[in-house]
Amino acid sequence: MTTDGDFRRIGIVGVGLVGGSLAFAIRRVFPDAAVVGIDRAEVTLVARQSGALTSGSAELAALAGCDLIVLAAPIRQNLAVLARLGAVVSGPALVTDVGSTKRTTVEAARALPPSLTFIGGHPLAGSARGGLEAARVDLFERRPWLLTPGPGTPPDAQLRLSTFLAALGASPIVVDPMVHDHVMAYTSHLPQLTATALMHVVGETVGEAGLRLSGSGLADTTRVAASPASIWTDICASNADEVLPALDLLIATLQTLRGRLAADDSIVPLFESAQRWRARLK
Amino acid sequence: MTTDGDFRRIGIVGVGLVGGSLAFAIRRVFPDAAVVGIDRAEVTLVARQSGALTSGSAELAALAGCDLIVLAAPIRQNLAVLARLGAVVSGPALVTDVGSTKRTTVEAARALPPSLTFIGGHPLAGSARGGLEAARVDLFERRPWLLTPGPGTPPDAQLRLSTFLAALGASPIVVDPMVHDHVMAYTSHLPQLTATALMHVVGETVGEAGLRLSGSGLADTTRVAASPASIWTDICASNADEVLPALDLLIATLQTLRGRLAADDSIVPLFESAQRWRARLK
Repeated sequence: MTTDGDFRRIGIVGVGLVGGSLAFAIRRVFPDAAVVGIDRAEVTLVARQSGALTSGSAELAALAGCDLIVLAAPIRQNLAVLARLGAVVSGPALVTDVGSTKRTTVEAARALPPSLTFIGGHPLAGSARGGLEAARVDLFERRPWLLTPGPGTPPDAQLRLSTFLAALGASPIVVDPMVHDHVMAYTSHLPQLTATALMHVVGETVGEAGLRLSGSGLADTTRVAASPASIWTDICASNADEVLPALDLLIATLQTLRGRLAADDSIVPLFESAQRWRARLK
Repeated sequence: MTTDGDFRRIGIVGVGLVGGSLAFAIRRVFPDAAVVGIDRAEVTLVARQSGALTSGSAELAALAGCDLIVLAAPIRQNLAVLARLGAVVSGPALVTDVGSTKRTTVEAARALPPSLTFIGGHPLAGSARGGLEAARVDLFERRPWLLTPGPGTPPDAQLRLSTFLAALGASPIVVDPMVHDHVMAYTSHLPQLTATALMHVVGETVGEAGLRLSGSGLADTTRVAASPASIWTDICASNADEVLPALDLLIATLQTLRGRLAADDSIVPLFESAQRWRARLK
């Protein structure tokens, strides 16, 4: 692998919201780079027609010759690709992913051959809607892009990837994979599960007529409940040891609230704590 | 009370987000009406300076001569005002409120003298921030304004209030007080309590450094956690019999989710149910 300079042939496995947005951003900032998308034929066809990809294939073999490979499929599929990558790409190449949990993927990447350097990644950007049709060239602009290099990661590879992501407009931030998965259980996975449970309960109880009497509060609180189940199944499964205690904490807090309301005790301290934390969100 | 025509002197008790926005809207649409605000002196001073009120007072006695009185304080204060209103206003006058629960207030209003006609109201408009400084002239535009007349409400009074609210740009909708409180427990009160509990748990667990690694998902899901505790204490207390079962349903659903994740069972059906209901939100 050349240790500096722009990537010349970039493979993106999974051309959905994140993979597609990444492809658009690369094509704009690095118009000379080849961008190879791996996905179903109907997806890569649309992505080529829209200018996101220079070529597309349903086969991993098309990744041969890539100096950067980005795994942008759901986590379980990324793991399956990692297991086969050494057989189809001789390298040298830098491999990264955009998965919402990091420990499982970082662990699986240890089995890659030495010619393939892996650095976990997670752009903090998204949309309640998934798929290529939701992709946007500016999805990552001024958004944190978390990177989880390990002790064995060559510093030049880390610098090269950070520089590349910064050129795309993102803000690369290095974080430990365990810290990442712990924090995300609370800042991302728990809000998702909460919004999903809330939307289910509200919809099933008041029905469509009741929903018509709702305001922006319900709409905001349940916005992410529109997210695709396929992605979240993998995220929760690969972070269950962090997500379960997070759910337990929320359930306990809701039970405390319930107890205080039932006993006509004050709920002000909990509201004021939440208000203080919310003010720090920005 | 004259049974038709515009109101000439309108009293607003509580000049915060809703009372202040209402005052601004009235001043724009009915520039000839007097708008009397009852609140602390520093609040009515600012409201008069900004043109929301034509006069202000800290005393209910200033409501004398009003043909429309709007109770726009927190619910418990509205109840206290209702108990004193007959002594300070001889009427005839139409009295309404903007509280987020209706049964308690409608019940308390039965004790008003016959010269004061009460119709419960609840504009479905708001903001995560409260107070006069958050008031906006267009807060109610194209938003539902729920009205809960009872069997004894004179039809002409109901028509007069509906016409007035429609002139301000709102969409009056008649609903039974019990149905109102049941539906709001799910579409408004449960989302609020959920967002508050979630923000508390997330903030206390990951702290400010962790919050910096959050995206729009947490921000959306916890937006209403910025709401003032004072308002929500009254709302929850006056609707506890509906809010407690709503909390129980959410807790049970979160426990189901937890159990399925722990057992590696599919969470897809719950996600798909939430996705379907979210799509009907608008």
